[in-house]
Amino acid sequence: MIKIEKQLLTLNQDIAGQEIGIPVYRLSPETAEAQRTVYIQSAVHAAEMQGSAVILKLIQKLQECHLNANFVLVPNCNPFGRTQRAGEYLQGRFDATNGNNWNRFYHYDEQQIEAFFSTLDLPKITEAFAQQGSKNAMEDDIVFKLRLFLKQQLENKLESQWGVNTAQYLNSTLQNMAIEADLVLDLHTGPSSTRHIYSPNFLAEQATQFQIETVISIPEKFAGALDEASFTPLVKLAELFAKQGLTFEYRVQAYTVELGSQENICLEQAKMDADGILNYLQTHQFIDGFKPLPAKDVTITDLSQYRTLFSKYAGMVEYLAKPGQIVQKGQVLARVLNSLEFDTQEAIKEIVSPVSGIVILHYPSAAVQIGTQLFKIAAQ
Amino acid sequence: MIKIEKQLLTLNQDIAGQEIGIPVYRLSPETAEAQRTVYIQSAVHAAEMQGSAVILKLIQKLQECHLNANFVLVPNCNPFGRTQRAGEYLQGRFDATNGNNWNRFYHYDEQQIEAFFSTLDLPKITEAFAQQGSKNAMEDDIVFKLRLFLKQQLENKLESQWGVNTAQYLNSTLQNMAIEADLVLDLHTGPSSTRHIYSPNFLAEQATQFQIETVISIPEKFAGALDEASFTPLVKLAELFAKQGLTFEYRVQAYTVELGSQENICLEQAKMDADGILNYLQTHQFIDGFKPLPAKDVTITDLSQYRTLFSKYAGMVEYLAKPGQIVQKGQVLARVLNSLEFDTQEAIKEIVSPVSGIVILHYPSAAVQIGTQLFKIAAQ
Amino acid sequence: MIKIEKQLLTLNQDIAGQEIGIPVYRLSPETAEAQRTVYIQSAVHAAEMQGSAVILKLIQKLQECHLNANFVLVPNCNPFGRTQRAGEYLQGRFDATNGNNWNRFYHYDEQQIEAFFSTLDLPKITEAFAQQGSKNAMEDDIVFKLRLFLKQQLENKLESQWGVNTAQYLNSTLQNMAIEADLVLDLHTGPSSTRHIYSPNFLAEQATQFQIETVISIPEKFAGALDEASFTPLVKLAELFAKQGLTFEYRVQAYTVELGSQENICLEQAKMDADGILNYLQTHQFIDGFKPLPAKDVTITDLSQYRTLFSKYAGMVEYLAKPGQIVQKGQVLARVLNSLEFDTQEAIKEIVSPVSGIVILHYPSAAVQIGTQLFKIAAQ
Amino acid sequence: MIKIEKQLLTLNQDIAGQEIGIPVYRLSPETAEAQRTVYIQSAVHAAEMQGSAVILKLIQKLQECHLNANFVLVPNCNPFGRTQRAGEYLQGRFDATNGNNWNRFYHYDEQQIEAFFSTLDLPKITEAFAQQGSKNAMEDDIVFKLRLFLKQQLENKLESQWGVNTAQYLNSTLQNMAIEADLVLDLHTGPSSTRHIYSPNFLAEQATQFQIETVISIPEKFAGALDEASFTPLVKLAELFAKQGLTFEYRVQAYTVELGSQENICLEQAKMDADGILNYLQTHQFIDGFKPLPAKDVTITDLSQYRTLFSKYAGMVEYLAKPGQIVQKGQVLARVLNSLEFDTQEAIKEIVSPVSGIVILHYPSAAVQIGTQLFKIAAQ
Repeated sequence: MIKIEKQLLTLNQDIAGQEIGIPVYRLSPETAEAQRTVYIQSAVHAAEMQGSAVILKLIQKLQECHLNANFVLVPNCNPFGRTQRAGEYLQGRFDATNGNNWNRFYHYDEQQIEAFFSTLDLPKITEAFAQQGSKNAMEDDIVFKLRLFLKQQLENKLESQWGVNTAQYLNSTLQNMAIEADLVLDLHTGPSSTRHIYSPNFLAEQATQFQIETVISIPEKFAGALDEASFTPLVKLAELFAKQGLTFEYRVQAYTVELGSQENICLEQAKMDADGILNYLQTHQFIDGFKPLPAKDVTITDLSQYRTLFSKYAGMVEYLAKPGQIVQKGQVLARVLNSLEFDTQEAIKEIVSPVSGIVILHYPSAAVQIGTQLFKIAAQ
Repeated sequence: MIKIEKQLLTLNQDIAGQEIGIPVYRLSPETAEAQRTVYIQSAVHAAEMQGSAVILKLIQKLQECHLNANFVLVPNCNPFGRTQRAGEYLQGRFDATNGNNWNRFYHYDEQQIEAFFSTLDLPKITEAFAQQGSKNAMEDDIVFKLRLFLKQQLENKLESQWGVNTAQYLNSTLQNMAIEADLVLDLHTGPSSTRHIYSPNFLAEQATQFQIETVISIPEKFAGALDEASFTPLVKLAELFAKQGLTFEYRVQAYTVELGSQENICLEQAKMDADGILNYLQTHQFIDGFKPLPAKDVTITDLSQYRTLFSKYAGMVEYLAKPGQIVQKGQVLARVLNSLEFDTQEAIKEIVSPVSGIVILHYPSAAVQIGTQLFKIAAQ
Repeated sequence: MIKIEKQLLTLNQDIAGQEIGIPVYRLSPETAEAQRTVYIQSAVHAAEMQGSAVILKLIQKLQECHLNANFVLVPNCNPFGRTQRAGEYLQGRFDATNGNNWNRFYHYDEQQIEAFFSTLDLPKITEAFAQQGSKNAMEDDIVFKLRLFLKQQLENKLESQWGVNTAQYLNSTLQNMAIEADLVLDLHTGPSSTRHIYSPNFLAEQATQFQIETVISIPEKFAGALDEASFTPLVKLAELFAKQGLTFEYRVQAYTVELGSQENICLEQAKMDADGILNYLQTHQFIDGFKPLPAKDVTITDLSQYRTLFSKYAGMVEYLAKPGQIVQKGQVLARVLNSLEFDTQEAIKEIVSPVSGIVILHYPSAAVQIGTQLFKIAAQ
Repeated sequence: MIKIEKQLLTLNQDIAGQEIGIPVYRLSPETAEAQRTVYIQSAVHAAEMQGSAVILKLIQKLQECHLNANFVLVPNCNPFGRTQRAGEYLQGRFDATNGNNWNRFYHYDEQQIEAFFSTLDLPKITEAFAQQGSKNAMEDDIVFKLRLFLKQQLENKLESQWGVNTAQYLNSTLQNMAIEADLVLDLHTGPSSTRHIYSPNFLAEQATQFQIETVISIPEKFAGALDEASFTPLVKLAELFAKQGLTFEYRVQAYTVELGSQENICLEQAKMDADGILNYLQTHQFIDGFKPLPAKDVTITDLSQYRTLFSKYAGMVEYLAKPGQIVQKGQVLARVLNSLEFDTQEAIKEIVSPVSGIVILHYPSAAVQIGTQLFKIAAQ
């Protein structure tokens, strides 16, 4: 049996003073206390809604499983973005007042990890690490202390008398929940996109268990996103231990999952997306009772091979290559119309692919400017 | 043989002073002077781009035909809208500074038609109308004078020392070209839409020759759009003649053509769209040499039966009924997700159709508010 | 003593499902039941915030007065507009998804008033109107019935299975409260503006009691705004009575009050704005205990003399004439810079006033396009 | 005598294919060839227009001086931003499609400077540096080669088959002109702001010659802006020389100048702003014939003391402290109204200053959210 709690966490206020919050669902085993935690959020880029449909399906399906972990599920986690329209669409990718991307202001400070490390009792740890049993307990203890430490850092940041910017405020509040978790999933979508997943290099193989066709394998560096903010502290800590000749094994598993196209909800697809996540959860014992799926053919692409093609023309574009399609170097991906040349051979310019690979996404509008991110391609 | 002239008509200036214009293509028979004129414009709502692809195809295909008319073709006719982005998309439906719809400020003033009528020499006209041959010549003469008169009214409006608003300025400049035409096509698209065409009641039957599956038949009234501004002066004039017992027969043919969805270019579809227009042109002798298409099954729906379903909920929407689909009264058209109720039976609300009919279009975003125009349905 | 009740009236929902409402303050005499009602709302155009500061001051100051009426005060009455940003500013003037002005969808239907009138027992009314005492009671009774009737019409509209658009939904819900009132004030501001007030012609003289320097006197016609929706039903009803030779005297007093510039809050000014309103309330016995202000010099301008100057150039503008300033015909109001002509005599174009009068407002941005509403001038 | 050339440099295209460019004015001595170059641009953030008025004044006033340098003056240098409206205002601070700040994508790559340095003939340079005369010539030669090198890097970047994003395209094209210059001024404004100037630490003293009341002294680091991109290559080069025991003296002088508030043009103020710049030019012999201004009282604030106060509340704000005003720690800077608490003591929240200092700017809108950049203060 499963326990479900729902909380409305206040984050935003509109200018009249009304509070606007986000729903937080906590699912946990009815009886035994779970040791591990899974954190899943969706729609921090507010127009990327499919993840919320997936969380709905997860809430339903997890009730049919046995939970070995606590689940914190946060659909529509951005109360700033989800009220911000740009014409008929939702402009939920960045703060409309200053351009700050809602997914780039999570907190990670390498020096704080070093400071934390310097407080540890290394001789005692060395002794404990000598034996697997005591090592595990010691690692758990260190992780516990690190989480307390990181939460304190977040609170210090939020409580500064000078305040923080809106994206920092949102990100810090979400991260405060995610910091507890052993597995963090940040559900996004692309613009016009096929499904893909960002995984840190050290998890790329097991990322295939999500059953998503393309894995983009990224370095263990911090560039502001939640997945990075989740796995980098432990990666950094392990590096510091390694310099002392100690092997620290625990890692947070964290992924950014891209569930197709923005401005789209499909419940049938959401069911399949949820199944992929459940497959991962079952494989790593976060749950029991889900029948594992047969392995799927997945391509792992290194981030350095995941390339963006920016437009060199402005104009009206016909996209010929579709998300998920394999293209060859030199193949025409798109045509750009120039209405000042409709009576000449210059009426149409062809955009060709500089590489062979899989088209992951293209721009969502037929109207592009010079420098528009036209296509992203996983080169082969 | 065909003569093609291209002009860049300056309309807009950006704040640095740079002039921004619209391309105007004029195609005419090489030798004989044509008596009639066809005016076609596209993308006055700038995100509705497919019409520009259709004009490209028309420029190519008309060169393979014999022209019995002059053609004025104006792709991307809105230099204000086409530079105005709203996030990743083009916000080209209304003036971003004041909400003025770019398709609602064309000029028509019933009293001016009455004033024009009062200048006519009715006894002389009555005499001429008695015989078909002289009647035709007299009608031509009256139409010629009416066009001069209407152009003068437009110029007076534009030259007022107080100026006119931006939409009036754009619309008046375009209308000044359209006023010469016997056939006016204003190429638009819907949001997520199937093809359909607005025709005045008196042309609804012949509108089927465009080979577009749904004709919306509208009353001969003026509500600000170009098609209405084009046909109402002649309709009104004929009414005034009728009150004098005279039958005035000439009408301007004018349509608003909706070519599928906004933010989309498809050249293959544009070829078919162009063929439908050529079929109409051939049927009405504006061109020769185009092989007529076999008649297509077309539904004519009266405007009073073309209904809008506004949302009663805000939320994330899955559109189940697709543009072009026939639905039954009570059928579920869409589902609205409410993420605050993901653990209850209220998680999903179903939107049902209040009528049976054809779904013509739905809103382009999955994020809707209360009162969003969710669906438009041609009721049967 | 005064009774204050506060209600949060839910109107909007964001896409996560969270309800967003408007605060409604009801002030009434503690003991006696008041016969009359005053309705005041602010910020239906959400960036026009000064009215909300004025309502704050009124809530404070009314507690020092004796109330002869019930007061319904609704600051920030637009929960759709007030969450909609356009860059750093609030875009609260129109629905960002379709351009619908939030102040143009109130309800008035002349035919419904005629239908209501046709239900009245004219012989009985004629008899009652013969004597002042019974006439007053009869008028009260008719007004009571009319309000019930109008509320029923609003409810029918809102409950249609097809729904209504967002602006209609907002406006109808607000109007449902305003319909009870004998005095309706809709607090707005201009862009960069001096204070002014729109009054129907029949109230123009008494509008001067608000102590606002310029009164714009408008015809008793309906164009979609709340003031018009409030006074037209009674004006129409009186016309219908007049055709029967009966004099119906009761009118709703309704004004649109423009309290300076948008995007501005000034509590000191709000105190003075509130005093002007209290002066009106005292003069018309809605309150007692406010010491009347000495009469102020006010200009009444007919709407036909309230002129808009649209820009004929695009460019960067220096506004020389300030809101509130008296200008002469031919006076330079503004200079437009053209950066493509910085080395020639065409670098600066001067905008001159076509009339003498008071500058009421100018555009809020230094960047204008052709057709921008540059100035509004009350001509003398 | 002075030579003036004007060029329209094409940068942007709208979706119809129309080219949109920026005016470039080149002023040079009529006869002698000038050795040095001054580059001044304005309005890369398009709503920050006052700099364009200043360039107009400079074009006029430089004609009254003797030029010792070539001047490249580029008003309205952002043809993307200046066509992008957000409601009534210009949203010209970032790319509306992705949030990229137009002033953060200039090019600087430390490793490229190291690569350039490694190509130099150090023994020959060491010899030349031994004597002041040959040292100057050698420095000139090195700077000349560095500029060629940097221009080549920019071209390589722009010519990549994958393209660059829109901001990179704009910034690289502008930087290609600025790279020639010995003095670079990037004219901006704040939101609601007093005048201030960003200067690298090593130029902070001489920055006072611009006669702008507050100098913000910044470290010689690169964060994406034009001033930084201009001075960092030489600073880095000098560091590399210093490691070899050599003193490389030449520096590019580069500043970001903030000329008051956005959305404002004032020609009278522009005259004074131009005089400050001329005063600097005269002091450093870029021109002759301008009568130096008496020294003005200027405050130099280190960047670490230039603090941002982010709002902890959402609401309607009255700004009490004005740009340019000196405030004390604890002083009330602003009041935030909460319309849900108009009947309680919580109606108004006061924002107090955490430090004593000069208020440099505040947010331009009265509607703020949690995390809005409310004030920037130069702490004392």
